[in-house]
Formats: sequence, C-alpha cells, structure tokens
Amino acid sequence: MKRTHNFNAGPAAIPLAVLEKAQSELIDFKGTGMSVMELSHRSKPYEDVHNKASQMMRELMDIPEEYEVLFLQGGASLQFAMIPMNFLKSGSPAHFVMSGVWSEKALAEAAKLGETAVIGSSKDDRYTFVPEKFEDPSEGSYVHLTSNNTIYGTQWKTFPKTKLPLVADMSSDIMSRKIDVSQFSLIYAGAQKNLGPSGVTVVIVKKEMLENANQEIPSILKYATHSKQNSLYNTPPTFAIYMLSLVLEWMKEQGGLAAIEELNERKAQIIYSCIDKSGGFYRGHAKKESRSNMNITFTLENEELTKAFLKESKERGFSGLNGHRSIGGCRASAYNAVPLEACEALAEFMTEFQKKHR
Amino acid sequence: MKRTHNFNAGPAAIPLAVLEKAQSELIDFKGTGMSVMELSHRSKPYEDVHNKASQMMRELMDIPEEYEVLFLQGGASLQFAMIPMNFLKSGSPAHFVMSGVWSEKALAEAAKLGETAVIGSSKDDRYTFVPEKFEDPSEGSYVHLTSNNTIYGTQWKTFPKTKLPLVADMSSDIMSRKIDVSQFSLIYAGAQKNLGPSGVTVVIVKKEMLENANQEIPSILKYATHSKQNSLYNTPPTFAIYMLSLVLEWMKEQGGLAAIEELNERKAQIIYSCIDKSGGFYRGHAKKESRSNMNITFTLENEELTKAFLKESKERGFSGLNGHRSIGGCRASAYNAVPLEACEALAEFMTEFQKKHR
Ligand SMILES: Cc1ncc(COP(=O)(O)O)c(C=O)c1O
Ligand SMILES: Cc1ncc(COP(=O)(O)O)c(C=O)c1O
Ligand SMILES: [Mg+2]
Ligand SMILES: [Mg+2]
Ligand SMILES: [Mg+2]
Ligand SMILES: [Mg+2]
Repeated sequence: MKRTHNFNAGPAAIPLAVLEKAQSELIDFKGTGMSVMELSHRSKPYEDVHNKASQMMRELMDIPEEYEVLFLQGGASLQFAMIPMNFLKSGSPAHFVMSGVWSEKALAEAAKLGETAVIGSSKDDRYTFVPEKFEDPSEGSYVHLTSNNTIYGTQWKTFPKTKLPLVADMSSDIMSRKIDVSQFSLIYAGAQKNLGPSGVTVVIVKKEMLENANQEIPSILKYATHSKQNSLYNTPPTFAIYMLSLVLEWMKEQGGLAAIEELNERKAQIIYSCIDKSGGFYRGHAKKESRSNMNITFTLENEELTKAFLKESKERGFSGLNGHRSIGGCRASAYNAVPLEACEALAEFMTEFQKKHR
Repeated sequence: MKRTHNFNAGPAAIPLAVLEKAQSELIDFKGTGMSVMELSHRSKPYEDVHNKASQMMRELMDIPEEYEVLFLQGGASLQFAMIPMNFLKSGSPAHFVMSGVWSEKALAEAAKLGETAVIGSSKDDRYTFVPEKFEDPSEGSYVHLTSNNTIYGTQWKTFPKTKLPLVADMSSDIMSRKIDVSQFSLIYAGAQKNLGPSGVTVVIVKKEMLENANQEIPSILKYATHSKQNSLYNTPPTFAIYMLSLVLEWMKEQGGLAAIEELNERKAQIIYSCIDKSGGFYRGHAKKESRSNMNITFTLENEELTKAFLKESKERGFSGLNGHRSIGGCRASAYNAVPLEACEALAEFMTEFQKKHR
C-alpha cells in the first residue's frame, strides 16, 4: 500500500502509526469486546480516554492550572459565535486584528451579536503579513486574532501582550510549536489540522473568563456548562476524542512541542528555500517575516503553469496542493503529521518541474 | 475475540459488519492512499461519501423532495437551542408535549429564548406513558414532542396530526421503524443510538420552514446556512458521516426499515415477555401501550436484587444494563444494531437469574 503525500489543508494528514493503532483496536478496544465508538461516554474505559486526552493537552502545552481544557463540537466556526455570545458585553466592543478570511468570519459573527472594532489589518496588502503593530485597546471585551492564516499562509511569530483578554483562533497551528498559554484568555482550534480528525474542537479557557461570562444563553453554548461537566454535558464525539488522544500520545513520543516545532521549521524551510531559489518561477504569497510553517502558499509565473503544476503533482501522488478556492494558486499544508520525507519529495518535484517547464 | 452483548443507551452498538468494513479500509480508503479521515471535505471521494449518506437517508426513510437532510454537529442538545433560535417567533409560543427528561430539556432551552407552553404531560405518572391526548393548538410557532423516551422506555406508537408544524426529537428511535416523514416539519436525532458513532446529528427539515425562519442569528446556528451549502458550510465530522453511510448501507442490506421494524419488535418482545412472565420479579416501568421497542426499562423486586442483577449481568458479558443515572433501575437498549441473539441471551440470563434468586 502506497501512502499519498498528504498536503491537505484540513482535514489533513494523521500519523500512520496512529491510524495503525486505531485500526488494530477498532473492533475490540482494550478487551472490552466493543469498539471505542460503542462505549458509553459514561463508562470507565471511555472516561479514561477522555481524561487522558485533556491531561496530555495540559502536559504537552504546559497549560496552567487556572485554565480549563474543553472538547466541543461544531468546529472553529461555532466558536466564532460562542465567543461573543459568552464574552461580548454590551457597550464594550470586541477588538479584531485582521489577518485573513478567518479573521473576517470571526468578526462578522461577533458583529451580529454586539459591538466590534478593527484595530489592525493587512487586508489592503492582500493579507501578505500579520499586522503586528496595532493600537492596544484598554477598553472593551477582548482582543481577537488568528494565529495562523490557513488560506494566506501567514503566521504570528510572537504574540502581542494585550491589556484586554486575548482570544486566539489557533485552528491551523495549535501544538505545532511552543507557546506561552498564559498570554491568552482563550485559545480555540478544530482538531482536523494538527490534532486528528474533524468533529472535535479544543478550547483552552481561563477559568476567570467563565465567571464573568454572559448568563442568558442556551446551556449548550455556554462554556461554563461544559467546564462544570468535564465536557460530558451531552454526548461528546467520542471517537474523535479517542483519535485526538492517540495523536497526543504520538506527539509525546516525537519529543513534545519543542521537537515538533524544530521539525516543522525544517519541513517548511525545505519548501520555502525551493521557492526562494527558483528565481521567480515560484512566488511565495506571504512576506518572509510572516511566513507560516504550516501553510506554504505560492503561485507560478502564470496561471497556465500553476494549472500544469497542480495537475502534474496530483499524478505524482501529492494531494491537496490546490490553494483555497477563495484565492487559488498553490498551498502545501505541512502540519505536524506530514513527514519530512513528504516535504523533501515535494521540493524535489518542484525542482524537477521547474527544470522541465522553465 | 468475543463480542460483548452491547445494550448501551448511546453511544451504542454498531453492526459488526460495519466495524469490519471500516477497519479494513481505515488506512487506505478506496485506493486514495489515505484514511477517509485524512480526505479533504472538498474532495471528490469525501463528497461521494457525504452525498451517499444523504441519498440513503432519503431512500430508506422515503423522505419527500420538499425536505432537506442535514448533517450537523453538537448532538440533539444543540438542536434544543437551534430549533427555537430559528423557528420560535415572538408572541407565538412553542408548544411542548412532555414525555420525559429530554422533553424537559428541550422545553427549558426554548423557554430561555421565547414563549413556551406545555400542552400535554405524563410527568405526574412518572412518565410511564406518552401523553397521546392533548389539546392541539392552532396558534403558535410549532409543537414539539420526543418520539422515544430513552430514559423511561416509552415510545409514541402513532404520531398526532397537528395544526402547527410538528417537530420531533427522534434521537433514540430514528430509522428503527417506518414513519411518515410528511407528518413532521422537522425531525432531529444524534447518530449515536441507531445510526452510528456520536459526533453527527441528522436533521430532516421541510424547506418551507427555512424560508420563514428567524434571520438574526449566528450563521452556524442557522439551518438555512447548512441547507444552502449541503452541510459543507464548515468542516463536517467526516469520519462520523462515513460511519453513518456504512450503517445506512447495512440497513438497506437488512431489508430496509420494514424489515428492521419487524425485527426490533421481535427483539423487544423477547425481553418484555420475560418481564411479563416473571410474576412481578421483573417490573416494567412503562405502561404496556407505550412500551418502547428501543429502551426496555425495568426494576427488580427490590433494590438489592436490582444491584445483584446488574452486577451479575456485567460478569456474564452484558454491557449497559444500568438504568439512566436520573432514575436508576435497569434498561436494555435494543437499537437496530443489537442482534436478536443478544436479546435471546439476555432473556435467558433473566430467566436463569430469577430461578436462582426467587
Ligand atoms: C484558521 C481557521 N479558522 C477557522 C476555520 C474554520 O474551521 P471549521 O471548519 O472547523 O469550522 C478554519 C478552517 O479551515 C481555519 O483554518
Ligand atoms: C431522546 C434524546 N434526546 C436528546 C438526547 C441528547 O443527545 P446528545 O447527547 O446527542 O445531545 C438524548 C441522549 O441520550 C436522547 O436520548
Ligand atoms: Mg486565512
Ligand atoms: Mg446520550
Ligand atoms: Mg426520557
Ligand atoms: Mg476547514
């Protein structure tokens, strides 16, 4: 069986070892005589999986005691609504730093629910960098940013210290590097890029945020509900959380976030240096200082070559190199589970393609 | 490998053939060189899975053209909030027929969002039957009922014809029998009982409901958003939908809903007749005319015997016979995927246990 070089933007690659483990115990989970999918979410064997996943998150990300780790459903898109529902106070705006389409969506949903303000944006520069310089507001409900811009291929390298609670959409780079959780009041991410399959959303939230949250909202949309019940208020997506727990185990085996960060840096550099050495044959979208180690975006000299590149790469066993529908071009998503070898193979192919079509 | 007799209330049994199929293609889905979990939700192989699942739902349930089939996240509990957010109009109450704890939760969430009314309830009789007789309201937003009461083990045998749109929580008996979809304006169910793993919620909704829905709500919580985008507005829970598609295929192979209904009736009868013949050793909670074919609830003569029964049944390889935490006692959930043999084995064990402890 040949594995495809999977550069999908999400859902994305999952470590082969994790898939093999899941496969081996799919029908009989640890001698229970059942699949993990068939376990009650109130049973001991499932609770062990569930609690292990949150323990491993804490351990790997070094999450302080005063934060909750929640496993929710609905993707990051539901967070776009839940965050303002819980934390946007009337007469106290939510501030947005705009670095791409996902920031725009987060803003649009908050704007339906209360007052918002834009405090920084790189939109006029086609989102080619992250707007690190913005006026830090001292009044308002919170500041929101997108740590990695999946579509444009840009990434915050250091995070701002804000006066208001800082909320970050880390959907496409969570656990790809070490970060200081204590700088944030809330971090959220769909699992389907770095952490496993789609269907579970990780939320890391400071407990004091929950105490001051809006009360008059549906139970299921209230973070406090899930925090009080260890993410077992209603039936959680048990299999997705199980897969997450396996991916976290695998991350630990890789040496944790420091080792993963280093490898991600190397993986990305292999492709970026191929772009940089191409003399303009390949053209990166992001400014160098904002380049993402997760999503590497580029186009070729012209539309025709871009098309040919995408077609040929597909034939050669690379998946997911198309750019997002909204901007076109090419994008290689090199999340945690994408092996170094896949990046090397891609760079090799890019070099070869250039020789042939120059 | 020995399979446990899985009577879990949800997440629950999944057909062994389905698990085997999932296992066999877990690492390489149809020659893609990837797991189905690693496919982009915008790729052809995933879209085929997605569309097949909704086609099979239509076919098996005989869903008319004027209905949408949606795959959402968040469980039935999110539907408790989404339904009133979308359809509860100001000054026009949502009417509830109360048949158990899940009806109560649905009511409580709607009451946070607008005006509600209770038009029927069996609460004073400890929810031992479904309140089939209620005053059918002619004014209001909709009527809500719970088709099968997972905790109390009661089930509507025929559904009322209501003047207002009828909304039904079918979480615990969807596709366990033939129903006339055209009697309902909206049907919802978490997949984790009859349809597969947790993590995907099926919603069947009449298109005209969407046209008249409330507009000023977050995009992700609007049914129209998902209907316009074929449940691909954001990343769907792809693996859960894949499992659903396999379960639906299996249901077709079993002969469709007519055959499944007949078998479910037989399965439940085996256990009910064991209760009825026990001379009061086993005591059913539900009145006979409201007995559920999905969740069979009973207690033993006294608390001590109930405990002994639960303990011994566990040792004998039966899982999930504990009643819901809120009422205790025993409950056997005999959903579609629970084989006849498991019900026979349970009846046999019950008879044996009675002999021993009489
Ligand atoms: C940065 C970012 N935020 C949010 C989303 C939306 O996530 P979901 O599809 O889980 O709602 C994505 C999806 O690609 C993303 O990349
Ligand atoms: C009838 C009924 N409705 C709603 C629910 C809640 O479903 P979920 O856990 O998917 O939110 C359940 C769960 O058991 C149920 O049985
Ligand atoms: Mg973006
Ligand atoms: Mg449940
Ligand atoms: Mg109930
Ligand atoms: Mg996505």
